[in-house]
Amino acid sequence: MAASPAEPSGSDSPVFADEEYRQAVVDLLGVIAYGELSAFERLVDDAKLAPNLEDKVALSSMAAAELGHFQPLQRRLGELGADAFAAMAPFRGPIDAFHEHTAPADWFEGLVKAYVGDGLAADFYREIAAYLDTGTRDLVIASLADAGQTEFVVDRVRAGIATDGRLGGRLALWGRRLMGEALSQAQRVAAERDALAALLAGGVDRPGLDLAAIGRMFSRLTERHTERMSRLGLDS
Amino acid sequence: MAASPAEPSGSDSPVFADEEYRQAVVDLLGVIAYGELSAFERLVDDAKLAPNLEDKVALSSMAAAELGHFQPLQRRLGELGADAFAAMAPFRGPIDAFHEHTAPADWFEGLVKAYVGDGLAADFYREIAAYLDTGTRDLVIASLADAGQTEFVVDRVRAGIATDGRLGGRLALWGRRLMGEALSQAQRVAAERDALAALLAGGVDRPGLDLAAIGRMFSRLTERHTERMSRLGLDS
Repeated sequence: MAASPAEPSGSDSPVFADEEYRQAVVDLLGVIAYGELSAFERLVDDAKLAPNLEDKVALSSMAAAELGHFQPLQRRLGELGADAFAAMAPFRGPIDAFHEHTAPADWFEGLVKAYVGDGLAADFYREIAAYLDTGTRDLVIASLADAGQTEFVVDRVRAGIATDGRLGGRLALWGRRLMGEALSQAQRVAAERDALAALLAGGVDRPGLDLAAIGRMFSRLTERHTERMSRLGLDS
Repeated sequence: MAASPAEPSGSDSPVFADEEYRQAVVDLLGVIAYGELSAFERLVDDAKLAPNLEDKVALSSMAAAELGHFQPLQRRLGELGADAFAAMAPFRGPIDAFHEHTAPADWFEGLVKAYVGDGLAADFYREIAAYLDTGTRDLVIASLADAGQTEFVVDRVRAGIATDGRLGGRLALWGRRLMGEALSQAQRVAAERDALAALLAGGVDRPGLDLAAIGRMFSRLTERHTERMSRLGLDS
């Protein structure tokens, strides 16, 4: 693992004297914050597809938990001298586009998206967080905590596949599409946000990722995606 | 105020030996629980009409707070030997109909509904709660706590009226329509749910409401509705 900037790492940490580093952290917290907001809204929409009120309440409660992560991110952005809404602005386009391109056609597609899509995003942000000061890293990891999706989604999707033989094939394709769309929007973000890209590339005092390390990161992301798909009983 | 059944009033209280009373409490908690769920879903929908991301987040956070009231109601229903979802079932029709008939055409109508509609429902449930054992009454009152709507809605609606002279007239009509729809659905519930109606009418050991008391209750509800409308700067 790469070394992270020296402790202590509150918002008054000396690491933030590096303006490029501060901007990268603002970007990262901004993209995560907007991700949480849009996950909230989208999960509540998808909950309308629930086959019964019990499942709707379960998914809605997970949505509310996602929203609960927003305020700590907003507070930290404020401590870093940034406005949360300005910090989120550059990411609205790519994240909204991801959701437009992956609107679930039914309850099961919504469930798979809530687990596989959010899992992929969380893995990616955690990978980035490994290169950050500990204060930011802890906040990022807490923001990405599983809101109870895993058990719920695995249970419902496996039961669905058991009663409908063709569902598994359709959802396997859907999982691949989620992966493809996520990568395509992530590339768009990386191309447009220099500070985030520079963070991964490293700086004078900061080790970054060389091409081999980026390759290993993508293998880890793919591996975990495969694990999630297979927990659902799906080929990836 | 009418006397309430004797203390103590946990779910093992002797008052619940009266099956009709228990059923009335189950009905009341059921209608409030479904009201919270549908308020949650509707507020998240209405938040999409927000003019900016800040206002959207504010309304979404209020929505999440409404959902937070659901679990204590569900737990208490369980303690009373009832299933929350079965308890909510009779009220889905009337509450869904209320929301269908009062879908806001824009952001301001949504705001007024969040404040005036929820306020009206909360006042009505609080009136009923005055006739209940203290344990139930406390739970009902906690479930109806303002999620921060008041200040937010008053601020935004007053600012809206200040910049658009015609908005006030339209929203005043809207407030009257909300009142009318709420009364019409409340009558439907009262006609269909004998236990709830009997609760208001009273029983052998339990004072109820005579016609004069019902009249006074409606004056109080109307008065508070008028107060809310005038806080918004609207005629009622």
